[in-house]
Amino acid sequence: MRSPIPDYLQEVLAACAPATGAVADYIPELAAADPDRLAICIATPDGAVYTAGDTDVEFTIQSMSKPFVYALAIADLGLKGVLAKVDVEPSGEAFNVISLEEESGRPENPMINAGAILTHSLVRGADDEERFERILEMFSKLAGRELSVDEEVFASEWSTTHRNLAMGHMLKAVGVMEADPVRVVRGYVRQCAIKVTCRDLAVMAATLAGGGVHPVSGERLLSREVTRQALSVMTTCGMYDAAGDWVTTVGIPAKSGVSGGILGALPGQVGLAVFSPRLDVHGHSVRGVEVFGRLSADMGLHMM
Amino acid sequence: MRSPIPDYLQEVLAACAPATGAVADYIPELAAADPDRLAICIATPDGAVYTAGDTDVEFTIQSMSKPFVYALAIADLGLKGVLAKVDVEPSGEAFNVISLEEESGRPENPMINAGAILTHSLVRGADDEERFERILEMFSKLAGRELSVDEEVFASEWSTTHRNLAMGHMLKAVGVMEADPVRVVRGYVRQCAIKVTCRDLAVMAATLAGGGVHPVSGERLLSREVTRQALSVMTTCGMYDAAGDWVTTVGIPAKSGVSGGILGALPGQVGLAVFSPRLDVHGHSVRGVEVFGRLSADMGLHMM
Amino acid sequence: MRSPIPDYLQEVLAACAPATGAVADYIPELAAADPDRLAICIATPDGAVYTAGDTDVEFTIQSMSKPFVYALAIADLGLKGVLAKVDVEPSGEAFNVISLEEESGRPENPMINAGAILTHSLVRGADDEERFERILEMFSKLAGRELSVDEEVFASEWSTTHRNLAMGHMLKAVGVMEADPVRVVRGYVRQCAIKVTCRDLAVMAATLAGGGVHPVSGERLLSREVTRQALSVMTTCGMYDAAGDWVTTVGIPAKSGVSGGILGALPGQVGLAVFSPRLDVHGHSVRGVEVFGRLSADMGLHMM
Amino acid sequence: MRSPIPDYLQEVLAACAPATGAVADYIPELAAADPDRLAICIATPDGAVYTAGDTDVEFTIQSMSKPFVYALAIADLGLKGVLAKVDVEPSGEAFNVISLEEESGRPENPMINAGAILTHSLVRGADDEERFERILEMFSKLAGRELSVDEEVFASEWSTTHRNLAMGHMLKAVGVMEADPVRVVRGYVRQCAIKVTCRDLAVMAATLAGGGVHPVSGERLLSREVTRQALSVMTTCGMYDAAGDWVTTVGIPAKSGVSGGILGALPGQVGLAVFSPRLDVHGHSVRGVEVFGRLSADMGLHMM
Repeated sequence: MRSPIPDYLQEVLAACAPATGAVADYIPELAAADPDRLAICIATPDGAVYTAGDTDVEFTIQSMSKPFVYALAIADLGLKGVLAKVDVEPSGEAFNVISLEEESGRPENPMINAGAILTHSLVRGADDEERFERILEMFSKLAGRELSVDEEVFASEWSTTHRNLAMGHMLKAVGVMEADPVRVVRGYVRQCAIKVTCRDLAVMAATLAGGGVHPVSGERLLSREVTRQALSVMTTCGMYDAAGDWVTTVGIPAKSGVSGGILGALPGQVGLAVFSPRLDVHGHSVRGVEVFGRLSADMGLHMM
Repeated sequence: MRSPIPDYLQEVLAACAPATGAVADYIPELAAADPDRLAICIATPDGAVYTAGDTDVEFTIQSMSKPFVYALAIADLGLKGVLAKVDVEPSGEAFNVISLEEESGRPENPMINAGAILTHSLVRGADDEERFERILEMFSKLAGRELSVDEEVFASEWSTTHRNLAMGHMLKAVGVMEADPVRVVRGYVRQCAIKVTCRDLAVMAATLAGGGVHPVSGERLLSREVTRQALSVMTTCGMYDAAGDWVTTVGIPAKSGVSGGILGALPGQVGLAVFSPRLDVHGHSVRGVEVFGRLSADMGLHMM
Repeated sequence: MRSPIPDYLQEVLAACAPATGAVADYIPELAAADPDRLAICIATPDGAVYTAGDTDVEFTIQSMSKPFVYALAIADLGLKGVLAKVDVEPSGEAFNVISLEEESGRPENPMINAGAILTHSLVRGADDEERFERILEMFSKLAGRELSVDEEVFASEWSTTHRNLAMGHMLKAVGVMEADPVRVVRGYVRQCAIKVTCRDLAVMAATLAGGGVHPVSGERLLSREVTRQALSVMTTCGMYDAAGDWVTTVGIPAKSGVSGGILGALPGQVGLAVFSPRLDVHGHSVRGVEVFGRLSADMGLHMM
Repeated sequence: MRSPIPDYLQEVLAACAPATGAVADYIPELAAADPDRLAICIATPDGAVYTAGDTDVEFTIQSMSKPFVYALAIADLGLKGVLAKVDVEPSGEAFNVISLEEESGRPENPMINAGAILTHSLVRGADDEERFERILEMFSKLAGRELSVDEEVFASEWSTTHRNLAMGHMLKAVGVMEADPVRVVRGYVRQCAIKVTCRDLAVMAATLAGGGVHPVSGERLLSREVTRQALSVMTTCGMYDAAGDWVTTVGIPAKSGVSGGILGALPGQVGLAVFSPRLDVHGHSVRGVEVFGRLSADMGLHMM
């Protein structure tokens, strides 16, 4: 018997309004993305993967890398060690303010850039090369294929990443980060430039949904405690200052990236990803938000 | 066959460390509470109620009234109308700052006092008497028994509620609240002084968990959409500035009150309540937090 | 020999561009002011008073009352006692935020409303009636004539003064103000509704400029220490969030009111006042700012 | 006839309580300063210089360089051009927050580090070497002798100046600074490491007090408008978050440095400097604040 899901996804795809919003253009390499790409992918913890649209087009993972590196840092250092450095509280973060917690100097959570940079620095490694290699290797395992870096996006971001460098130096200045800020930020920018497809993201998300077990290989990549922590933080902090709105309307732990992807993971049930490069004012994919809303409603995926 | 739950709850009760922390003492009526009371109650959507400890001692509902009045306001005015007045984003609210959203003047969410006061004003009623009567009637239906007000607690809070009056006047000043601020705050303080037991709270929470259907009477008191909204907001905003910590460690949508109660509702599964008057620095019941953590772990109640 | 100053003031008056900006309209009584009134007045510590334009038109003193009530509170309670309750640091104060200093709960300075309300409460008096009478009496002495309250402006402001009531209750809530907040705010609103002319303001300012000695009567109304404190606070906090801009461009300690007046006092030299009801976005009189700038430049009145 | 001032200064020196507080120790080179040094110097615009104590001991100028570089930037670029980049409003700046004005991205004033870094970048120069040389040359003219850099302090600060680098990158990120942030911060740190004596500072301050004319050489180094702007900004922003307190109690436009110096300039009257390395919690010299207070009171130097 054939699953009705592929037909449904095609229908969602077809029903999508023509994209509005603009592609991220702070570096030319992102601005060059075809703005009308659209892909939807659903992966279940038992390994079924359903796709529609441009699911094999590669783009950079950007901020969608954050929950996975957070998971890796916890696996390396323990939850307590990571919490001592990065808190888990929701936070608005305006473009021209760097705000760390008053007494501890901790970034408010690992989903904002300051927290993600510090989290990157906590991944084990003899030096920044090894740290990055471990991240790339883990992402490849999660995706089920060998991933690589978009060197042009990396080079372009690296040459203009003053805001991230400001954060790196500030984390060093307040004493909460030990490693060299320039090297850490370089590694973080490199982490954001790893290339994935919409299918990769759905499979990666399905590993979170499945409590750490890879949906295809069946290999345990993360402990249950680690995925629970990552999903919890995605719930309260994953969609930045629209976090509350997202939880009420969509109700799926999620993370978006400026390249136009959004990934979501409903515990025990399903990993999802949508890719469409045009962004709204929050920096989320316009059609990504739309499709997530529709999938949540149609398939009853709201957590509550 | 006998359920093992009662024995388990007795065991949890017995294992609880002697309470630390201090009872709320900003009014003498709260300070007079027996600090060593302890009650645990679990109610399932199909009507089973399990209790241990002082489950029939009455105390004032305080902030645990907020999600239910929010639900009532949405039922009365529609979700869109309520969202136009009160946002759903997490917020830290320090003791000496009143902060409303910059452009809209909206309180950040209905779980902080400013938002709860405004939400109270949105409940339908020809005047403030009727508004309060409708709230009391709805709470009585949710609890499955006729509730009443602790007039001494009300009188005492009302005579010292300068902070809430400050908020009421501010909401009026920025134009987001139409009703008379003194009358609204009076009604809100009265709402907080409704007397409940730990058992009442668990049954009320079970109605949220059950999508709006009362676990005992089987009557539909709230729509599924309304309970989803209330539970979502409890998830991101219910435990104030410890919201992120609560989601990661306990993972049950919850609301606490300064009288020492905490109620929680896991969608589709269970309503819970704990009562123990000694509070931590966040104003949450110390043993309430402890018991919720234990129940979440032992019974696998974490959302993620 | 005739002073050339009157001719100069007439020239400044004539050179003033037609007023732009709108008259304050948050209550109808202020909106009814003739928007094209213009008055300029200069008073020297030795009693010379030069005027041009509508210098005998009465309007309400509004926030220009603040430095004088601050002076009275210090005379009554001592500088140390007042500083324990109200700080002297500059502050931006947005319309929808009430912010008090984190540990002390003190308003940041006596020129913002929160600080002015608290300062009002510090004036000695058996009750709020006596407190107000002492303020009115002192203002009358400073102006050199019997002043009175605009009862219509008072009644109108009092019925709509939710923002000030919010502040009053907050000051009470954090414990920094002892008196009843509703009575204090009532007295403060009444203080703001005292009627003055442009000439009155210049003479009052000249007393500050003259170290506390009245320019006409020669009577010492305030000590040198008290006027120094008032002038210092006017320098750093008198013009709200445009304080730095005012010090650099005009360089005269000053205070403006929403009725369209600005008064200034250059220590040892001169008291000035301008009246023109149309306001800029900061709530300062448009032509008041213009005339002050011109007088500062032409007459070399910049402090630096 | 002999001036009584030297005897008076000796008396002030002798009356100074033994210093309390700790020398700045964020780099070893500053921590090595002799904590018990004490110097007082007064210079009048007509060239008289009075000294007491260790007035020829060299130390680094640190933040006391800020008003002079601000003056130079205005001389180079015009006041309007500088105001477009750096505002003149007072600001509290906490250690772990970088805050720029919301719309413009401008630092709030040129006395906080962010503003001083941006101001440094506005000094004319073909490259950062020339920019620095012009600053050193101007400082030498102001001091009346050839100044040089403390290369050890510079090297040590440069290797640990993460907070300033954070600000530099942030200024670049928001687009308000054009130059390369690493080079600008390097130049700024070098500017702070210029060696001066207490006598140098008093003479430099006297040039500000004298409207831009050097007290000894009689050469005009700055225009009257430029010195007025620098003095105005010192008045409202020179002493950081203690600005209001300083204006009320001391009343002399001033700037302090973490090396233990404070310089002040009373327009038309006098330049002053005190050096004593032990600091209070605001980072101001403890005995510097004490001596300034005494000089202000004894010599009637309060602006008001």
